[in-house]
Amino acid sequence: MTARSVQCPYKLASRMLHPDSTVVQVGRLAIGGSTPVVIAGPCSVENRDQILDIAQRVQKLGAHMLRGGAFKPRSSPYSFQGLGETGLQFLAEAGQATGLPVVSEVMDIENLSMICEYVDVLQIGARNMQNYPLLKAVGKTTKPVILKRGLAATIEEWLLSAEYILNEGNPNVVLCERGIRTFETSTRNTLDLNAVPVVKELSHLPIIVDPSHGTGVARYVSAMSLAAVAAGADGLMLEVHTSPETALSDGPQSLTPDEFGLLMSRMETLVSWANTVEEVPVHG
Amino acid sequence: MTARSVQCPYKLASRMLHPDSTVVQVGRLAIGGSTPVVIAGPCSVENRDQILDIAQRVQKLGAHMLRGGAFKPRSSPYSFQGLGETGLQFLAEAGQATGLPVVSEVMDIENLSMICEYVDVLQIGARNMQNYPLLKAVGKTTKPVILKRGLAATIEEWLLSAEYILNEGNPNVVLCERGIRTFETSTRNTLDLNAVPVVKELSHLPIIVDPSHGTGVARYVSAMSLAAVAAGADGLMLEVHTSPETALSDGPQSLTPDEFGLLMSRMETLVSWANTVEEVPVHG
Amino acid sequence: MTARSVQCPYKLASRMLHPDSTVVQVGRLAIGGSTPVVIAGPCSVENRDQILDIAQRVQKLGAHMLRGGAFKPRSSPYSFQGLGETGLQFLAEAGQATGLPVVSEVMDIENLSMICEYVDVLQIGARNMQNYPLLKAVGKTTKPVILKRGLAATIEEWLLSAEYILNEGNPNVVLCERGIRTFETSTRNTLDLNAVPVVKELSHLPIIVDPSHGTGVARYVSAMSLAAVAAGADGLMLEVHTSPETALSDGPQSLTPDEFGLLMSRMETLVSWANTVEEVPVHG
Amino acid sequence: MTARSVQCPYKLASRMLHPDSTVVQVGRLAIGGSTPVVIAGPCSVENRDQILDIAQRVQKLGAHMLRGGAFKPRSSPYSFQGLGETGLQFLAEAGQATGLPVVSEVMDIENLSMICEYVDVLQIGARNMQNYPLLKAVGKTTKPVILKRGLAATIEEWLLSAEYILNEGNPNVVLCERGIRTFETSTRNTLDLNAVPVVKELSHLPIIVDPSHGTGVARYVSAMSLAAVAAGADGLMLEVHTSPETALSDGPQSLTPDEFGLLMSRMETLVSWANTVEEVPVHG
Repeated sequence: MTARSVQCPYKLASRMLHPDSTVVQVGRLAIGGSTPVVIAGPCSVENRDQILDIAQRVQKLGAHMLRGGAFKPRSSPYSFQGLGETGLQFLAEAGQATGLPVVSEVMDIENLSMICEYVDVLQIGARNMQNYPLLKAVGKTTKPVILKRGLAATIEEWLLSAEYILNEGNPNVVLCERGIRTFETSTRNTLDLNAVPVVKELSHLPIIVDPSHGTGVARYVSAMSLAAVAAGADGLMLEVHTSPETALSDGPQSLTPDEFGLLMSRMETLVSWANTVEEVPVHG
Repeated sequence: MTARSVQCPYKLASRMLHPDSTVVQVGRLAIGGSTPVVIAGPCSVENRDQILDIAQRVQKLGAHMLRGGAFKPRSSPYSFQGLGETGLQFLAEAGQATGLPVVSEVMDIENLSMICEYVDVLQIGARNMQNYPLLKAVGKTTKPVILKRGLAATIEEWLLSAEYILNEGNPNVVLCERGIRTFETSTRNTLDLNAVPVVKELSHLPIIVDPSHGTGVARYVSAMSLAAVAAGADGLMLEVHTSPETALSDGPQSLTPDEFGLLMSRMETLVSWANTVEEVPVHG
Repeated sequence: MTARSVQCPYKLASRMLHPDSTVVQVGRLAIGGSTPVVIAGPCSVENRDQILDIAQRVQKLGAHMLRGGAFKPRSSPYSFQGLGETGLQFLAEAGQATGLPVVSEVMDIENLSMICEYVDVLQIGARNMQNYPLLKAVGKTTKPVILKRGLAATIEEWLLSAEYILNEGNPNVVLCERGIRTFETSTRNTLDLNAVPVVKELSHLPIIVDPSHGTGVARYVSAMSLAAVAAGADGLMLEVHTSPETALSDGPQSLTPDEFGLLMSRMETLVSWANTVEEVPVHG
Repeated sequence: MTARSVQCPYKLASRMLHPDSTVVQVGRLAIGGSTPVVIAGPCSVENRDQILDIAQRVQKLGAHMLRGGAFKPRSSPYSFQGLGETGLQFLAEAGQATGLPVVSEVMDIENLSMICEYVDVLQIGARNMQNYPLLKAVGKTTKPVILKRGLAATIEEWLLSAEYILNEGNPNVVLCERGIRTFETSTRNTLDLNAVPVVKELSHLPIIVDPSHGTGVARYVSAMSLAAVAAGADGLMLEVHTSPETALSDGPQSLTPDEFGLLMSRMETLVSWANTVEEVPVHG
């Protein structure tokens, strides 16, 4: 381990230098504690009724936090780009109505302070994982930040991006594995669950998993959610929509509330299992 | 589903044409039934004492089948190439001493009938997944075949390789996900657990997972084993060695018997959990 | 072709809708005309003398434009981050002293108008290829933009990013292939020269190639530069440093001025060859 | 270089231990000499007239060797598998009629000695690059062997596979880059021309390039052929078919004889250029 510590290019994110696991608090909610956190909601906030309705449903089914995009990074300039600040107002209102903290993506420094007024947690998307000016800017806030892994980012590069945020003084970084790009085409991305034990070894930061983007196919989300929790993930980020077939973005990978509810039941049993067994120590 | 069925390039391996899940019997052992099967043992059979010792240990700890390589496909001609038929004799002896069925890899047609005399299950390695003459030859036997996924094989190509075996009359094919090649270097390969729900949807064949090759790092094997079972895998193939640091091949990814035992305990609890909960049906 | 045109997700970047090849003018210099353009210079502007010295050398050896980074996107927050505006002042001075137009990277909207005062051409780096607010912002300027391909970007996604710029009213986009991320480790990236004929078919925009980043190894830059020109690239972007072993960034992939000079001689002969032969029309 | 030589896992294939470039003789034809060799012909031998016709056309247009598959490794068991020995008879006849040496693929040891009676050069396909028993078997013959790179093989693994052949006593190995598997979908594979200068540095063996498989699209073959030669390749392997749209395999990537003729004209000029310029030596 000595040889590795000498070469380790990150410091603040390193478990070798900071052995205790970090718990990121979002109000009373703890990410990185003993219970996996479930963040659910639509890909995009589409209108006031939609986000309120989904928020109430996922809250009743056991979600701990609400997600919803207002500024959407879309490959095409002709795709729906999100409702902007109006979307954030709806999201914040849905959060207040349900008591759920809310998370939404920030894409540029211009809108950062405005977004901070509406959300409890900032999200940096996969496409911006190496947008260093943005990383520095969120590092200067006190908001918890969910940092998604880039499609072609190694785990080392991902931890270095976390280091940019930590280095500016914000210790509240949550990593989110959301699939990498490979040759396989039967899934939209290849959800890399190996990242869970690797990150747990290399870093003290919590890591959650997004099987919705990671697979791109609603039919595979449940299996991969359970797998993520069994692998030791600190939480899940799940896309839920009341009408996936008419969603303005990411419909094919969104669960219906019913599917989400069934998954939550299975998860609950799994988590109670996880808490009954001891860790497996390993050699080398 | 109609559109897809028209384009589906495989027939005998397709779940659409064969809705019932296949259970492959190895003596009294069922692969693809209600309980995940655990195949354990060293990468290579190194000598008589080694394989007997490991066999006895993993049997006591709950393994259902014994693995051990006698013909080893190694990247370098200067690496240990396996003990050949002598290794198979030791493996068969260890299987008889413990009552465990045994599996070993076949690399060419020349040795196929000889290997069949010693093993209960044939293994086709990742490098030979598209060795079509070999696939046809094992398809003409009646032995169960574990078909590993190639490092750069899509799931469709993998199922087409299974089709080669099925098409010769051997219905006993077990698929084995063992990691694909990506840009990530913190693991030896990227274990693609998405393959589990994808294969379950597309095919009726059982699928097992090899986290030893899939990660290449013993420290990550336990987490990924549990994840594989939670994702719905029908079994695991695990490398176990009494002395990983002196193993002639694959030491860094081998569990010690103690680590294997702890993993088996956790797994048992997880499996009992899995049997208590119902399936999550999904739309679309 | 009709079927494809219906599905083509970009419009302004599409050759089907705009059959004539675009020539981007940088003063009197034409990118996309009959002669490949050579952009050379150091990875980073390190000090006034360094950039002036390199500028004079590459200008004498036949370079058409000068490159030099002042704002550097580095994986680690602890790596040299560039001289900022001071670096741009030095770069602009070197450009004026040699008569070479200059290009430098823009990483955020905050610095965009300031950078525009110093440079003739803006560069969007690979890490920002899907930084859509930045793409829109450079699309509102009149400066030519070199848009580098992201490490995991498909050619379609790359053209969609160009579409973001074009859609804001700036028609002066030059695409730059700089290597994609694959499993191969003998080169830093895999320079994808297939992108040259593919882009030429799908789009009217000029495409240049950066073999310095594409290979990451100075010893391979010459061969890949000649290959790029033979494949039909409209230009090259090359890192040149008077002292690669002491460079503050990217030394291992930088040519010395002598190596650059030899490459320019070979290139000249190759280009004169290219102009003597007719196109090869193909079926289908 | 010392450090690297210590770690270099291959010996017989290494340029460090064997500085002089190997020239593989096929009768009077030299692969690895001063002039790039062009191997052309259909993907599959389909019937006697087809191979005779194509052979005569490509011979007149300047090809140096004739290719044609008789044993075809196809992803699906339901695809055309080749004419077998009958195909080899037609191929050999076409070779004799035109004076062109012939090359065809060997897929298994069973057919090796029979195939050796018909062909001048053996080909090991990408799927069999790590079929070690087959590599050893061709290593025991005296036939020149074209060893294609596997879809997910690193250059080091490729050279190790060459080492298997060399180690059995056959020094006549020609490497063939034919595209690797990446995330990009606009080409069938990603032709990795970086492999040309990398192999030239690491090994003394000749390297040729197959842009037909490397791109999978006839429209891109010409540009990539010229690029390969400019990068320093010792030859090309090109699929040519008189009727690509009705070819039994690989039609979309096959050139017509007319297209092949135009490419040969361009190539001739390019090669004469290449011979007029000196090498570019590089530092480091």
